Amino acid sequence: MSGWDGWFAAQRSAREHAGVQRVLRPRPATEAVIDLAGNDYLGLGAHPGVRRAAADAALEWGAGAGASRLVTGTTELHAELERELAEFTGREAALVFSTGYHANLSAVTALADKHSLVVSDAHAHASLIDAARLSRAAIEVVPHNDVAAVRAALASAGDRRAIVLTESIFSVLGDAAPLPELAAVCAEHDALLLVDEAHGLGVVGAGGRGSVHAHGLARHPQVVVTATLSKSFGAMGGAVLGSAALIDHLTNRARPFIFDTGLAPAPTAGALDALRRLRGRPELPGAIHRRGGELADRLGVPRSAGAVLSVPMPSPRVAVAAQAAALAAGVRVGCFRPPSVPDGVSRLRITARAGIGEDRWATAVAVLSRVVDDHREGS
Amino acid sequence: MSGWDGWFAAQRSAREHAGVQRVLRPRPATEAVIDLAGNDYLGLGAHPGVRRAAADAALEWGAGAGASRLVTGTTELHAELERELAEFTGREAALVFSTGYHANLSAVTALADKHSLVVSDAHAHASLIDAARLSRAAIEVVPHNDVAAVRAALASAGDRRAIVLTESIFSVLGDAAPLPELAAVCAEHDALLLVDEAHGLGVVGAGGRGSVHAHGLARHPQVVVTATLSKSFGAMGGAVLGSAALIDHLTNRARPFIFDTGLAPAPTAGALDALRRLRGRPELPGAIHRRGGELADRLGVPRSAGAVLSVPMPSPRVAVAAQAAALAAGVRVGCFRPPSVPDGVSRLRITARAGIGEDRWATAVAVLSRVVDDHREGS
Ligand SMILES: Cc1ncc(COP(=O)(O)O)c(C=O)c1O
Ligand SMILES: Cc1ncc(COP(=O)(O)O)c(C=O)c1O
Repeated sequence: MSGWDGWFAAQRSAREHAGVQRVLRPRPATEAVIDLAGNDYLGLGAHPGVRRAAADAALEWGAGAGASRLVTGTTELHAELERELAEFTGREAALVFSTGYHANLSAVTALADKHSLVVSDAHAHASLIDAARLSRAAIEVVPHNDVAAVRAALASAGDRRAIVLTESIFSVLGDAAPLPELAAVCAEHDALLLVDEAHGLGVVGAGGRGSVHAHGLARHPQVVVTATLSKSFGAMGGAVLGSAALIDHLTNRARPFIFDTGLAPAPTAGALDALRRLRGRPELPGAIHRRGGELADRLGVPRSAGAVLSVPMPSPRVAVAAQAAALAAGVRVGCFRPPSVPDGVSRLRITARAGIGEDRWATAVAVLSRVVDDHREGS
Repeated sequence: MSGWDGWFAAQRSAREHAGVQRVLRPRPATEAVIDLAGNDYLGLGAHPGVRRAAADAALEWGAGAGASRLVTGTTELHAELERELAEFTGREAALVFSTGYHANLSAVTALADKHSLVVSDAHAHASLIDAARLSRAAIEVVPHNDVAAVRAALASAGDRRAIVLTESIFSVLGDAAPLPELAAVCAEHDALLLVDEAHGLGVVGAGGRGSVHAHGLARHPQVVVTATLSKSFGAMGGAVLGSAALIDHLTNRARPFIFDTGLAPAPTAGALDALRRLRGRPELPGAIHRRGGELADRLGVPRSAGAVLSVPMPSPRVAVAAQAAALAAGVRVGCFRPPSVPDGVSRLRITARAGIGEDRWATAVAVLSRVVDDHREGS
């Protein structure tokens, strides 16, 4: 037996001991369960029209883009989606990537290098952390949403180009970043502010145009936005939104863009159709906030700035037990345990979703109130 | 104006000066041009049955997976594809990723850390290089295909876990790695050999089962395979193939797997259908080699071990001019310039493809012979 097998086995038993071993659970196409674990906040990924648009694109364009975007992998579909994403968010230009992860890796590594300073919020998503590491920049991690700490870090940047990394709505806790303050601090120091709107677009602001737009920062020269097409837009992929000069720079310099096959036609068209439906129904994100507020009040947790409700649990095992109890009662919620939580606290992660009928929503609220009560105190 | 705009402008004018500025050129769904630039080697991404399978999956499952694979983003489609990929390549288990890039980032970062040694071939793909950097391991780059240098590097590993990175068929030059020799050296040192079969699967070996299988290494305990679903399988996505213990380890530890939305249903089903078609037509990859041999002989370049023919050009500008001349005559080929070439030599990159009619293939050969003759000598 190779030493590697011993290493795998030791790691696995340590995970089992800590209650954090995970296995994949394949699901069927249709389920009776009410899903409040996924990120299809507006229900657009499951919308018959969006499905149809994705299917038609596969029929018309083929199953894949066929090559890197710079070779022959840019279709008119990509260009259309980029145009409409830029218009929707009020930015000059957009670039579409295979995943939101690729968008973050690309933006940070094309903007920062070993002569740069990256200032990263302590709760930043794994893709931003990996992006900062990959850039080889000096990294300063600042306490969560601490504007003064960001200012102090930037004051020490000296001649270095500096970038501040944050999320508009944080992925696990669901809280919001102080964007106007951060943008002002960045402008003072000629630093860029990279705002990951993965959980903001389609959720926050007028018609779901995102937090950056809502704060009047869409034309701010220091603000770069990254996004995913895998959450409110219901498909897969990522995007960077900003000036035409930024997009030209990424097109030429971002390795995870240049050396990666283009996003497949079906998710490209699915995201585009979802975007158009959202534009046609600007009231849609309102349901997320109405439902999120109701559920937060019932569970006794703070209201969320976005769609994500975070419910702390006493331990990884209790979190798993609560998740199983909810599922047994017909409601699927997320369960985040180390290493997927920024602060080591295991929690249920529940998404307030617009694409669910009123009856089913009422059932979900009743089930979750009971399950959370049963698990938060005892066991 | 912010200093960033000046920086973007300076970088752009340096690129323009060096003749390496790139722009995206959106293409329509159907074109008269004969495409020898893309990586849909077997024509399966454009096959009506594969398109149909991708479209049906979007209709049945929705436009996206809806969440991370560990939350609710694993569908029965993913599980089926993983089973059949493992079976096809003769490995115990498989894990599917959003991109081939994610597969490489995941495999290397979950296996190596700052206490490890990564030995990387000088021609390794950008995704492998980024993966090694992201892992924080010590990195030793060895000369291309130099087994003695790999042995020497491993001899210096001491107690460190060591991984050797290579490609079965290299992406730009199209040459093959000495896999049996590398596997033997790795076994001696209890190092893992990670073989990226992006350009080997569907192309090399009996029925396109890849180079690792062809060399009888599919059950070798030291060999880990990564792959893409974006080339011979005509869709998008990536995979890692190996032991069940390895796959369990990646499922639990690979950040670009855990923190990324699952591959969308349409490309998942497209790749699965392409795989099944390839299994039903094991003679299909033969056309690649027949055509590749014919074209190599006509162009006076070495025959390729895979589908990729690499034709060196005197400069980036001449390479671009040759590419434009071919396109004007109805044939699209790739053009690789710095930084997309491992050795700084600009070149045409031409893929010998199975999914093109005999007449069109004959036209392409005639056009390319003329264009390469015109551009290799003079200008
Ligand atoms: C904040 C944030 N950024 C980026 C990503 C990555 O996006 P994708 O899943 O499209 O790769 C995610 C989640 O998946 C996220 O929550
Ligand atoms: C050798 C190699 N590995 C990995 C990749 C990345 O695969 P993907 O495009 O599926 O991300 C590519 C090309 O795109 C490649 O050529």
